[in-house]
Amino acid sequence: MPKISNRGSQMQASPIRKLVPYAEVAKKKGIKVYHLNIGQPDIKTPQTALDAIRNFNFDVIEYSHSAGNESYRKKLAKSYQQIGINVNENEIIVTTGGSEAIQFAMLSCMNHGDEVIIPEPFYTNYNGFATAAGVIVVPITSTIDDGFALPPIAEFEKLITPKTKAITICNPNNPTGYLYSKEELEQLSEIVKKHDLFLFADEVYREFCYDGEEHFSVMKLKNIEQNVVMMDSVSKRYSECGVRIGTMVTKNKEIIETAMKFAQARLSPPSLGQVAGEASLDTPQEYFTEVYDEYISRRNFFIGALNKIDKVMAPMPKGAFYSIVRLPIDDSDKFCQWLLEDFTYKNQTVMLAPASGFYSTEGLGRDEVRVAYVLNNDELANAAKVIEEALKVYPGRI
Amino acid sequence: MPKISNRGSQMQASPIRKLVPYAEVAKKKGIKVYHLNIGQPDIKTPQTALDAIRNFNFDVIEYSHSAGNESYRKKLAKSYQQIGINVNENEIIVTTGGSEAIQFAMLSCMNHGDEVIIPEPFYTNYNGFATAAGVIVVPITSTIDDGFALPPIAEFEKLITPKTKAITICNPNNPTGYLYSKEELEQLSEIVKKHDLFLFADEVYREFCYDGEEHFSVMKLKNIEQNVVMMDSVSKRYSECGVRIGTMVTKNKEIIETAMKFAQARLSPPSLGQVAGEASLDTPQEYFTEVYDEYISRRNFFIGALNKIDKVMAPMPKGAFYSIVRLPIDDSDKFCQWLLEDFTYKNQTVMLAPASGFYSTEGLGRDEVRVAYVLNNDELANAAKVIEEALKVYPGRI
Repeated sequence: MPKISNRGSQMQASPIRKLVPYAEVAKKKGIKVYHLNIGQPDIKTPQTALDAIRNFNFDVIEYSHSAGNESYRKKLAKSYQQIGINVNENEIIVTTGGSEAIQFAMLSCMNHGDEVIIPEPFYTNYNGFATAAGVIVVPITSTIDDGFALPPIAEFEKLITPKTKAITICNPNNPTGYLYSKEELEQLSEIVKKHDLFLFADEVYREFCYDGEEHFSVMKLKNIEQNVVMMDSVSKRYSECGVRIGTMVTKNKEIIETAMKFAQARLSPPSLGQVAGEASLDTPQEYFTEVYDEYISRRNFFIGALNKIDKVMAPMPKGAFYSIVRLPIDDSDKFCQWLLEDFTYKNQTVMLAPASGFYSTEGLGRDEVRVAYVLNNDELANAAKVIEEALKVYPGRI
Repeated sequence: MPKISNRGSQMQASPIRKLVPYAEVAKKKGIKVYHLNIGQPDIKTPQTALDAIRNFNFDVIEYSHSAGNESYRKKLAKSYQQIGINVNENEIIVTTGGSEAIQFAMLSCMNHGDEVIIPEPFYTNYNGFATAAGVIVVPITSTIDDGFALPPIAEFEKLITPKTKAITICNPNNPTGYLYSKEELEQLSEIVKKHDLFLFADEVYREFCYDGEEHFSVMKLKNIEQNVVMMDSVSKRYSECGVRIGTMVTKNKEIIETAMKFAQARLSPPSLGQVAGEASLDTPQEYFTEVYDEYISRRNFFIGALNKIDKVMAPMPKGAFYSIVRLPIDDSDKFCQWLLEDFTYKNQTVMLAPASGFYSTEGLGRDEVRVAYVLNNDELANAAKVIEEALKVYPGRI
């Protein structure tokens, strides 16, 4: 039997992969499991998107243009212009989810063996895409004690080698909920300029910024227009994760041309998803206001409830719908498994994502978990109570 | 400005990429362009698939399981079993088009720098996926003079090095229309076994086999079950290229486990496409009979018409809906551009794919083009006439 590749063993394990079977067993036992582990919102997809799908009136479901339908890209460009991002339809490639946008950015900008610096904890799948592209992730640690702010620029500079080609940020951040300020991004832009790096920014949670804070897109940074690639997605914005539609946006023509070669190799992004994505651009403002109010309410309630638990610390997230939470535990992998395998409170338990999976540095995040507040407040209240009771009896409490 | 990666320049140019702007100009001039260059069939998508989309009745378009919906995989397994391919739902990963199945197979089985032998002319995008994975394509030349039969096994063995990890075939073949026989595949299986290689087989045209010839799947080869990965797609079978749904199928658990890591990184295949794909499995037999009869009629008519033209030679394809055609020309890239830029017959012209783009060996295919007979017979008659008239006056005729 031939030997398979060693790429799989190079990949960071998904934080929840090992937990899934335990969750399934718990459910089979009739236990109610609150899923705080995933970013699959329970919010309804906009009616305009659902209607567009149901009114699909072509006889053949054809390939689209490899860069995505022109009509869609034009509307996307207009929507970006409305929020001050100056791009046209030729600076946008419609991708198969934000995932493919990240892949295209890495493949187009980075050679095998090149390094990308990413503040940790980070979205684990960056590691998967880096492994696929043969790119090396160099983590720079941000900490819960300062709410996961951008690490000092001096720390970035310590990590820069001749192989360093890019910095990747996620803003607002998954998994931390941190929102980088304009000032932090300007600091980043200086080192990007100084060391001639690319700056990849995953801005899929752009609309989810709270407490009056405004999102500042990397596309608005002066002097590094040619260095910047923005990754975007319709998944969270319109609660339509399953359509698999995202965008890669850049003013750099060379990057677009190279990315288009990869786009053409895979022929086209999903046509039906583009129908939903394009229609979603007509979503009325009330939809977003309602969703926004719902998340604010969930965040305030749930993060508040967690911080009331003895020895639990959860920074108030300024964006997205996640938070990294510090717990009085020995090992978050063990704790999360124990919750599913050995604990119930009134026949309920919770599924959490161990934060160790979001750190690339070995040993970090062992007393942290990521929560996604994508359930309604009643469910979140039950989930918080489960966590509180669980921590009282968890054998590995410290 | 930072330097982009050199991956793009390593990629073989798409055979038609440079031609697209010329086709657009021709159309703007009001010239009717017959597209023989692409595999986008004009056949209607099955009604059952279109109905399933229009009846989509969920409120949220959610991620699916990373391996694809279980219900779909179970139905797929059953449909494979019905054609003698013995697999279950855990041996199938639903992918974003056949494209992603090829990517997963390469990433899971091959390391950076490993070599894959592929009979040329081959589907150009294999080269794109190989470049993305850092895998090296080693071509083995098949020739039009023997109808693009499998090259002798001795020729394969000459190319095997310590870096050789896999052989990839497409059966029936795009771009040649050749159908590998059971005997040829058994020969291949011996060398796969002897040298402990993987065998990747792209079988997306499985149903398109003509003249009573039967398709023999690599999944039925004895003794190399652990070496085989089959790539499949709904695109051509149901004329629904835009749904972007394919499958990677293998009995090898290690490959499935590694591929699942890449599948989880990109979260899920398109949910709406899976709705169409699953419904398509209920397509009545009459649909296929009708499509099959249509392609037989097109093939017989069009390949016949081409062979009647002076100094034109087109092997009769035994499968798929392509043929490589030898023309009395100096350079197929120039000829195909000239057709769009400088030639019309009764205000019509044709767009062909220069065969040079399907060969990895420099200089091959310069007197060959690929045709896809995906138009109706009236259009094909006009297209053949255009080619005949064009060859009479083409300045580079030899």
